[in-house]
Amino acid sequence: MSHQISPSPRVRRSAFYNSTVRDGVKSFSTYNHMLIPISFGDPAAEYKRLTEGVAMWDVAVERQVELSGPDAGKLAQALCPRNLADMPIGMGWYVAICDHRGTIINDPILLKLSETRYWFSIADSDLLLWARAVAGERGYQVNVFEPDVSPLAVQGPMAEDVIADMFGDWVREIKHFEVREVEDDIPMLIARSGWSKQGGFEIYLMDHYRGDELWDRVRTAGEKYGIGPGAPNSQERVESGLLSWGGDTDDETNPFEVRMTRFVDLDAPDDVIGIQALRRIKEEGPRRWQLGIKLDVEDALPPLDQWSELRQGDMFVGHVTAHTFSPKLQKNIGLCLVSREVKSGDIVYVTLPTGQHCKGEMCKLPFV
Amino acid sequence: MSHQISPSPRVRRSAFYNSTVRDGVKSFSTYNHMLIPISFGDPAAEYKRLTEGVAMWDVAVERQVELSGPDAGKLAQALCPRNLADMPIGMGWYVAICDHRGTIINDPILLKLSETRYWFSIADSDLLLWARAVAGERGYQVNVFEPDVSPLAVQGPMAEDVIADMFGDWVREIKHFEVREVEDDIPMLIARSGWSKQGGFEIYLMDHYRGDELWDRVRTAGEKYGIGPGAPNSQERVESGLLSWGGDTDDETNPFEVRMTRFVDLDAPDDVIGIQALRRIKEEGPRRWQLGIKLDVEDALPPLDQWSELRQGDMFVGHVTAHTFSPKLQKNIGLCLVSREVKSGDIVYVTLPTGQHCKGEMCKLPFV
Repeated sequence: MSHQISPSPRVRRSAFYNSTVRDGVKSFSTYNHMLIPISFGDPAAEYKRLTEGVAMWDVAVERQVELSGPDAGKLAQALCPRNLADMPIGMGWYVAICDHRGTIINDPILLKLSETRYWFSIADSDLLLWARAVAGERGYQVNVFEPDVSPLAVQGPMAEDVIADMFGDWVREIKHFEVREVEDDIPMLIARSGWSKQGGFEIYLMDHYRGDELWDRVRTAGEKYGIGPGAPNSQERVESGLLSWGGDTDDETNPFEVRMTRFVDLDAPDDVIGIQALRRIKEEGPRRWQLGIKLDVEDALPPLDQWSELRQGDMFVGHVTAHTFSPKLQKNIGLCLVSREVKSGDIVYVTLPTGQHCKGEMCKLPFV
Repeated sequence: MSHQISPSPRVRRSAFYNSTVRDGVKSFSTYNHMLIPISFGDPAAEYKRLTEGVAMWDVAVERQVELSGPDAGKLAQALCPRNLADMPIGMGWYVAICDHRGTIINDPILLKLSETRYWFSIADSDLLLWARAVAGERGYQVNVFEPDVSPLAVQGPMAEDVIADMFGDWVREIKHFEVREVEDDIPMLIARSGWSKQGGFEIYLMDHYRGDELWDRVRTAGEKYGIGPGAPNSQERVESGLLSWGGDTDDETNPFEVRMTRFVDLDAPDDVIGIQALRRIKEEGPRRWQLGIKLDVEDALPPLDQWSELRQGDMFVGHVTAHTFSPKLQKNIGLCLVSREVKSGDIVYVTLPTGQHCKGEMCKLPFV
C-alpha cells in the first residue's frame, strides 16, 4: 500500500532532489532521515539499464560519518571488528559495526582518506551517535560529524565508460573500493563501489549546492550509453545476495549469520567493541544463517508480510526477510534468516498474507 | 511537494497502522524508522478537535528505549543532565540528552517505572545506540532495548472525559507526566502527557498485536465527545512553542538555546555526559536563542525553504525553523533560532522561495 509523504526539516531532501523530481521519480523511501528515490515507474527498464547498460542513482542518503583528528584511526579501529593496522590510504573496506554483544548496528564502507581522516558511508542507523559516544567516553581527540557529502551512483556494465568519458581513462585503473580525488571545479571524490554486483562507481559530491549540476553532467555523459535514472534495485540485490541492514537483520543478528565472517578479524585488538562477544559466538557457533529461497509459484507474489515466518512441518525455522521476482531466474526468490538446522535443498513453507502456504526450496547465496 | 512512500522492513508500520488507514489517513511522515500519520485530510477539523474537543493520534513512533537491570538508574543518570536523585517512581521527566559537547541529541520523556527499569520515550534519533554505547563502554549491568510499546495519544480538553469513561474516574487524579498501570486484559500504562498544550493522555500499549482493538475502544469511548483521528499538530505546536528535535535544532544546539534551561541541573554529577560542557556554555553564555516571529503577510504562506535565513538589514541573524498559519492569532507565525543580539520586538526579514522578502516581528515564546 502506497501513501503520501512530503519533505520536512526532519525528512531532508537530497542534493539531487530537484533533478530526480524533474526526471520523473515515482516513489521514495526514507533512509538516514532523508528521502531516497526508489522507483521511476518502469521497473523492467530500470533493471535492464542496471544489468545491461548504465543507471544513475541518487544515493545521497548514504550519509558519511567523518572522523577527523589525531585519534581518528584509534576510533575507527575501536568501532570495527576488522584489523585496520594495514589498511591503505585511499581504500574503502566493508565492515560490520557491532555493539558490545556482537550485534550488527550498521554495515558501512569505511573509507580511509588519510591517517587522521576517515569516512563511514553508512546504512540506515545513526552511526554518528554511536561513534560520538565511544569517542567521548574514551576521551579520544577526534571530531565526529556529518560532512557535506552526497554520493551519486553510476552502476551497470557501461558505468566505467561513462565515468571515463567524464574524467579520463585513468579511472579504468581504479580498483574495487578504491577512492580517488578528481581535478574538477566541482569538489568530489570517485570510488569503484555501489550497492549492486553490476560494477560501477560512486561519485562523492562535496558541495550539496552543486547536486543538480553534477546530475546533469552525468546524464549528458551517459546519454550515448542510454543512461537513465534508477535506484538501489531490489530485484538485483536479492539475486546478488546483497545485505540490507535493518531489512535483513534484527537486533540479534551477528556478522556470522549474514555471510560477513570474512569481514571479521578475531585477532583484532581486545578493545575493539564487540570483539570479545564475536570470539565467543564464533566458538559456540551462531544459531542462524542466511540462505536463499526459491518459491514454488508461477506469478509474481504480492508483498509478503514483513519477516514472514518459515516452517518445516509444524516447526518455525526462521523468516523471509526480503523477496522479489527474479528476472534472471524467472522465479520468485527471497533472502531468509533461518536456523542452522535448515540446509540448502530443504523444503520449507511460507505463509502468504492470504493465509495460504507456499512451498519453497532453500539454497545457498548468492543466487547468481 | 508530496510523494509516494510504502512500508518496508526498514520503514515499519505502527500497531495502529491498519486502523489509521481504515479511518482515512491522507499522508505520513517517517520517524524512528516507522510511518507516522500526519494528516487525515481536514486540517481545520483536526485543529478544532484538538483545541476544543478531543483527538486520537497514532504516536507509536515515539519508540521506547528501555533500561533494565541493576545499573539502569546509573545509566539513566549518566545520560541525563538533570539531577535524578529524587525522581519518584511512576513519574516522567522531560530531559535534554546531550553529547559530550553539550549538544542535544534527543529530547525524550524519561519514565521511571521502578528503581531498575526506565523508559525513554524518544524523539527522532537512535537514542538506543547512544545509550547502549555508554552502557557498554562503562561496563554497566543493564539491558538496553526497544520493548513492544506503542503509544496512542488522546489529546484535547475532553480527553480526560474519554479516558475516565474508559478506565474510571481515578484517572482524573493522575498528575502531569505521571504514569499509572491499568487493570485490563490489554496490557497498557497510561500517563497524562502528549505533544500538545491542550491536555490529554498517552496510552502505552504493550502488545502491538492489539493495536486495532485498542484504537476501536478509544474511538467508541470518544464517540459521544466527537472524537476523531488526528496527528501531532503543527499549527498547535508552533502556537504553543513545543520543540521538534531535529526540526528546530541542528548539530550545534544546546538546551539553553531552546528554552530548556529549567530542565538542566548544573549540579548533576560530574560523570553525567555533557554536564561539563553545559557548565562552560552557561558561564560563557549561549550564542543563540529561540524566539517567535509574526510575519507581515495576509494569506497563508507557501512552505518556506527548510531553515530559511533571517536578516536584519544585510546581516544574517538566524533561521526560521518552522512556520504555520495560526488559527488562534489569525497570523503567519514561526519559530526561530537566532543570535542573542536579536530581541523581542525587532523587525527582521525572511527570504521567501519566490525571492521576495517578507517582514516579521520577533516575539517571546510561547505565542499563546
